[in-house]
Amino acid sequence: VPRRKAGKPHSMAPVVHIIASDDRPLLREAVEAGGAELGPLERADAVVVFRTSPADLPELPESVRWVQLPSAGVEHWLESGAIDGGRRWTSAGGVYARPVAEHCLALMMAGDRGLRRLVEARTWDDSRATRVLDGLTVAIVGAGGIGRALIEMLQPFKVEIIAVTRSGREVEGATRSLSAEQLDEVWPAADHVVIAAPATAGTRHLVGAAQLEAMRDDAWIVNVARGSLIDTDALVEALRNGTIGGAGLDVTDPEPLPDGHPLWELENVIITPHIANPYSVEETLLGERVQENVRRFAAGEDLLAPIDPEAGY
Amino acid sequence: VPRRKAGKPHSMAPVVHIIASDDRPLLREAVEAGGAELGPLERADAVVVFRTSPADLPELPESVRWVQLPSAGVEHWLESGAIDGGRRWTSAGGVYARPVAEHCLALMMAGDRGLRRLVEARTWDDSRATRVLDGLTVAIVGAGGIGRALIEMLQPFKVEIIAVTRSGREVEGATRSLSAEQLDEVWPAADHVVIAAPATAGTRHLVGAAQLEAMRDDAWIVNVARGSLIDTDALVEALRNGTIGGAGLDVTDPEPLPDGHPLWELENVIITPHIANPYSVEETLLGERVQENVRRFAAGEDLLAPIDPEAGY
Repeated sequence: VPRRKAGKPHSMAPVVHIIASDDRPLLREAVEAGGAELGPLERADAVVVFRTSPADLPELPESVRWVQLPSAGVEHWLESGAIDGGRRWTSAGGVYARPVAEHCLALMMAGDRGLRRLVEARTWDDSRATRVLDGLTVAIVGAGGIGRALIEMLQPFKVEIIAVTRSGREVEGATRSLSAEQLDEVWPAADHVVIAAPATAGTRHLVGAAQLEAMRDDAWIVNVARGSLIDTDALVEALRNGTIGGAGLDVTDPEPLPDGHPLWELENVIITPHIANPYSVEETLLGERVQENVRRFAAGEDLLAPIDPEAGY
Repeated sequence: VPRRKAGKPHSMAPVVHIIASDDRPLLREAVEAGGAELGPLERADAVVVFRTSPADLPELPESVRWVQLPSAGVEHWLESGAIDGGRRWTSAGGVYARPVAEHCLALMMAGDRGLRRLVEARTWDDSRATRVLDGLTVAIVGAGGIGRALIEMLQPFKVEIIAVTRSGREVEGATRSLSAEQLDEVWPAADHVVIAAPATAGTRHLVGAAQLEAMRDDAWIVNVARGSLIDTDALVEALRNGTIGGAGLDVTDPEPLPDGHPLWELENVIITPHIANPYSVEETLLGERVQENVRRFAAGEDLLAPIDPEAGY
């Protein structure tokens, strides 16, 4: 039973309904801290969705004027047609930027230090070369929230940072800022290519055979965005042939990656099962965004991370 | 044949001899850039040692007034009796601080993210909890050069840092600075315990059964110092029993760790074969120190990282 602040007339505060498979106390607290009341879907002004797929979303009454989705990437929600007009929809864009950037850094360093090979060897073999981050060039393809967080985490290192955005706007902390049209400059220049762009029709197979061929043969590619941005078959070939140095993949295509897939077997690949944003912090971080967006909704202000169906994110 | 600057009388510049198993152009350049001449051991004023064990050090003529050793930890040189009086000896203390600190961060993050388990699983299993650095407490036991570099690399993260030094002096960037006498406060407080103290008689088995028992059951211990600082048998027990969360070990006792040792088999252990300072940067970084110490030697100034046989480092 949702708690209500005694004596507060219902008409004053918007009613928010949480759609989740189990009780989410942090989200309840966030809704109330943002100045709304919790209530049933039938009389909800807004809905917060947590760990629910588009197929499981119930029909929304007309009273619902805003839906907060739980993920930063919303391509599945757009493809399903769930995101209808007539109300506002927001993603969790930027919410998980820090944990995802941190995971990205962990994958980069694990690659530099050859951790997979060393773990699997189970013998003291110091014969293979490893490298340090200092002195390397890191390219971030799609320098949005994750990219900004990663750039912040890279500040103590002596690295060159190439930040690629659609517009090519100056990205703070980057050594060079490039536009999507200048993307081909990235491949031969980078020791680490970080993929952090949204999955849209325009970014599908952004990295294919030609791009991998243009990369340095000791470069690592790290994907914390969506599997579809990389042509998996071309990646397997490039990793097998030594066209590039290795890959750190938190996302794959297909996903989940099936048992026996060649990517599992390659010693220069580190795969994590889409956990860059760990469960342990998901509700806490979404709660912070929910509180702020509820406050904005109640105050009639613009919401953070509105979804633009045209742009695809 | 060492190059000599034409027309420069021998008496003006000190003669430095390099002891190494093969030619080291970066060290040669460093010696000359520091203002010395390269020359044979028989008429050397100083000696630079690279990748040579104490047993392989030739007898030094009396003319040698300074010996630059290649490693930060010099306990083997002290134990062997090679470090005699009557001349100055310097270690590479601080030289490799950045690559070692970076490796330490890589091991911490690999532990937080469960990378060993995920790499070995070869299947898409996102059921196990991982954690983020943000919000954790990192204790650095022996906050010298490596500790300072690690603290710098941790600045972008929202972590509490406990720095332990012998004296307890205020360590810049640390949340709390403790003395060796306050060490017992560290074990229950830290999510990561980083061992970065020199190996001396006083630090042997600094971490034993009692200390491990006092640690949190999800805490990781990361050793980038020397294997002898941890009681290996007690560590194996603690890792098996879930007394602590895991261990990242770049150094072990015994070292090299023999095949079949129980540490190799534990899924919450990541072992790297004493490569925190990778070969790829060793000569470059030592060269920078050699150049500066040669300059100081030629100018009659104090040298960096003089070895104190009493202190044991």
